[in-house]
Amino acid sequence: MSRHLLDISGCQTSELEGLIERASALAAGASCACRQGTVANLFFEPSTRTRVSFEMAARRVGLQVVNIDQSGSSTSKGESLADTGRTLSAMGVAAIVLRHAENHAPAQLAAALEGTPTRVVNAGDGQHAHPSQALLDAVTLHRAGFDDWSRMRIAIVGDIRHSRVARSDVALFERLGVAEIRLAGPDAFLPDTGEMPAARRFCDIDQALDGVDAVICLRIQRERIESTGYPDGDSFQRQWGLTEARAAKLAPHARILHPGPVNRDVEISASLVDSPQSLILEQVRAGIHARTAVFEWLIDAAG
Amino acid sequence: MSRHLLDISGCQTSELEGLIERASALAAGASCACRQGTVANLFFEPSTRTRVSFEMAARRVGLQVVNIDQSGSSTSKGESLADTGRTLSAMGVAAIVLRHAENHAPAQLAAALEGTPTRVVNAGDGQHAHPSQALLDAVTLHRAGFDDWSRMRIAIVGDIRHSRVARSDVALFERLGVAEIRLAGPDAFLPDTGEMPAARRFCDIDQALDGVDAVICLRIQRERIESTGYPDGDSFQRQWGLTEARAAKLAPHARILHPGPVNRDVEISASLVDSPQSLILEQVRAGIHARTAVFEWLIDAAG
Amino acid sequence: MSRHLLDISGCQTSELEGLIERASALAAGASCACRQGTVANLFFEPSTRTRVSFEMAARRVGLQVVNIDQSGSSTSKGESLADTGRTLSAMGVAAIVLRHAENHAPAQLAAALEGTPTRVVNAGDGQHAHPSQALLDAVTLHRAGFDDWSRMRIAIVGDIRHSRVARSDVALFERLGVAEIRLAGPDAFLPDTGEMPAARRFCDIDQALDGVDAVICLRIQRERIESTGYPDGDSFQRQWGLTEARAAKLAPHARILHPGPVNRDVEISASLVDSPQSLILEQVRAGIHARTAVFEWLIDAAG
Repeated sequence: MSRHLLDISGCQTSELEGLIERASALAAGASCACRQGTVANLFFEPSTRTRVSFEMAARRVGLQVVNIDQSGSSTSKGESLADTGRTLSAMGVAAIVLRHAENHAPAQLAAALEGTPTRVVNAGDGQHAHPSQALLDAVTLHRAGFDDWSRMRIAIVGDIRHSRVARSDVALFERLGVAEIRLAGPDAFLPDTGEMPAARRFCDIDQALDGVDAVICLRIQRERIESTGYPDGDSFQRQWGLTEARAAKLAPHARILHPGPVNRDVEISASLVDSPQSLILEQVRAGIHARTAVFEWLIDAAG
Repeated sequence: MSRHLLDISGCQTSELEGLIERASALAAGASCACRQGTVANLFFEPSTRTRVSFEMAARRVGLQVVNIDQSGSSTSKGESLADTGRTLSAMGVAAIVLRHAENHAPAQLAAALEGTPTRVVNAGDGQHAHPSQALLDAVTLHRAGFDDWSRMRIAIVGDIRHSRVARSDVALFERLGVAEIRLAGPDAFLPDTGEMPAARRFCDIDQALDGVDAVICLRIQRERIESTGYPDGDSFQRQWGLTEARAAKLAPHARILHPGPVNRDVEISASLVDSPQSLILEQVRAGIHARTAVFEWLIDAAG
Repeated sequence: MSRHLLDISGCQTSELEGLIERASALAAGASCACRQGTVANLFFEPSTRTRVSFEMAARRVGLQVVNIDQSGSSTSKGESLADTGRTLSAMGVAAIVLRHAENHAPAQLAAALEGTPTRVVNAGDGQHAHPSQALLDAVTLHRAGFDDWSRMRIAIVGDIRHSRVARSDVALFERLGVAEIRLAGPDAFLPDTGEMPAARRFCDIDQALDGVDAVICLRIQRERIESTGYPDGDSFQRQWGLTEARAAKLAPHARILHPGPVNRDVEISASLVDSPQSLILEQVRAGIHARTAVFEWLIDAAG
């Protein structure tokens, strides 16, 4: 079967561990393997940071990049994703990095590309998965000195229900054998009860943060909050935000992560974003390395 | 006079034959000549496949690419096409690949660039011409084994009237000496009677397809069909679409082409798109080679 | 302190002179120094010519380019400019070329990047500054044979008040010791009386042009003219446009500049744009060289 990066569950644990190890080595200065060909960034949702991160990672391994931004155009001529994929594959594209509003669009694309050498990388699909983000989160924690997953306690706080990042984080942390994964957020932001059975749910953030090694704050989509009966920004911060007072109660070695972009003073106090406890910019750095490792893994070296 | 690729009629037959031969050689694995400089993709209409195809072809010959997407901006600052062209030429751009909604915009651009070394490539202008598409269609047929144009019968079916692809195809096939060019479509989709005199017109698709070696289906612009009294998708398919039943009556060696993007089950049955008779993905492959040959032809090797 | 190109006043005179000299040498054929890394073009306002000019200049020194076009998206996810900058810096971007509608946005970005190696280049901020345009104007004049600034008289005509180009031109010409800087335009287009004290103001264009060595015409933003009581295009041209009659009264050695894009027959007669007196395309050429020199200056050669 062709290799693709669709979601965490589609990878073997040894592959995931290999990617994290390789990305950490790249971050530590290892030179990267050279690949030939072209990567297509096919984005049906707007993105700056993820698209640029993939673009820089691709070039770092010697790949060329074509950017296809469909976020404005509502797929103007009505071609199906499968046909777009087959067309890009026929053009000789080595990999398609896909961001799409619909869950499982990357898997559909991969199915359409069966029999071709073109790889698919999921750069975020609906609320389903964002596997390269989970990998970079693990790389960030690993590089920050957390080298024994079986002793780690990680809290994920905020809008977990709608977050592809949270789904991929939980799936990866389970695979790595993280001791305890905690979820905290208002009811409307928690996943269905059947989902994420290995994670512990908290309806009080202070309990959820007690004794953790790392907190992953999630982006609250302010534009959505007004219209849906979710708590507004202020009351969210009061009840669920990572405030300075809450951060002060964390263990000295505990670290703070956020996939970005951050709404300062909503899900996290502005001062914490730039504090020594924050690994937020380290996540951005690790993103380049994680995606570089993904391209090395997916695309074979030229004969 | 400067070389440009504006339309088929502006090229000598020997040049067209040379481009087809060279593109076929590239498709067969010939290494491509190295050029230096930058190509500007100047697109006033949205396009994914054509822009990406030119982008990959340009890089293949060593050229760098700048993409200028004017499709959203309605030329926001009001600069004329001639001034935009002269500005890009002054920046040192070796070639401008232009897609524009107006017929003959590339010729106007070429006139504005007279005396400069900057070449113009027409990537589709209004309903007038799309010469690189015609070249890739010929390359595709040539590579599929049709090596004697004087014995070929080709049917073009669908919205010929509004199709720059059809105009360039007919012009090129005439030049190459194709034995018989047939046009088939509803009255509203046929060109004016004075146009394309060498082609035979059919008002019945089954007659048009009888005995042909290749069928070129054209994209029906669904968004246009509703509002103009043209047949709707279903009735179009019934009367004019390439259905499985119609394809079954074609000769075993006959092949099916479509410039894409395809409306599956409108102008062509979905199953035929992916059938062994279909050359649609071969056309995409040939497009890279045809455009590579165009850049080799237009841009001189650096001293 | 980190080097950035924010505005003319932030540079030392020796640096400005060095940049002009270096750009002139590049224009004369000097080979350019090689740099490594990636430049991010971060554009919050639409631009073709400036973005492409920076893109080509960056590649000329060996830098790779990522384009981030925020002009459509109204910064869709609400991240601050400072956070976007820090994110790009964490990705390893060597320089951010910023165009922004707000005055001093580049200085804010530079402040956010303190302590990082990432440089900021102002590609136009509000009505404040456009320093690379001023540099290219000086390079253009220098290359056209004006080599003694202390003997030059330069008139700037049109909408000076809203022009970042004019502000940077005046600041640079003062620094270079230009003998006389003249400003001419309708009252509504002149800057506040306190601003640009070294420049002489004229309320009659014919007086302003008398005896000058160079005229810089500015773009009149036609879309703004209707709604604000400014003169319409026709009456502007009559009173303030550079017409053929006015150009005929200039000294034979005098030259005409315009930052583009030009509204032909508004601020300048169409025939003058393409006349031998015009340096408008020379400005475009000089732009590549000036920006190349800026990248050479800002970004250190790799060890």
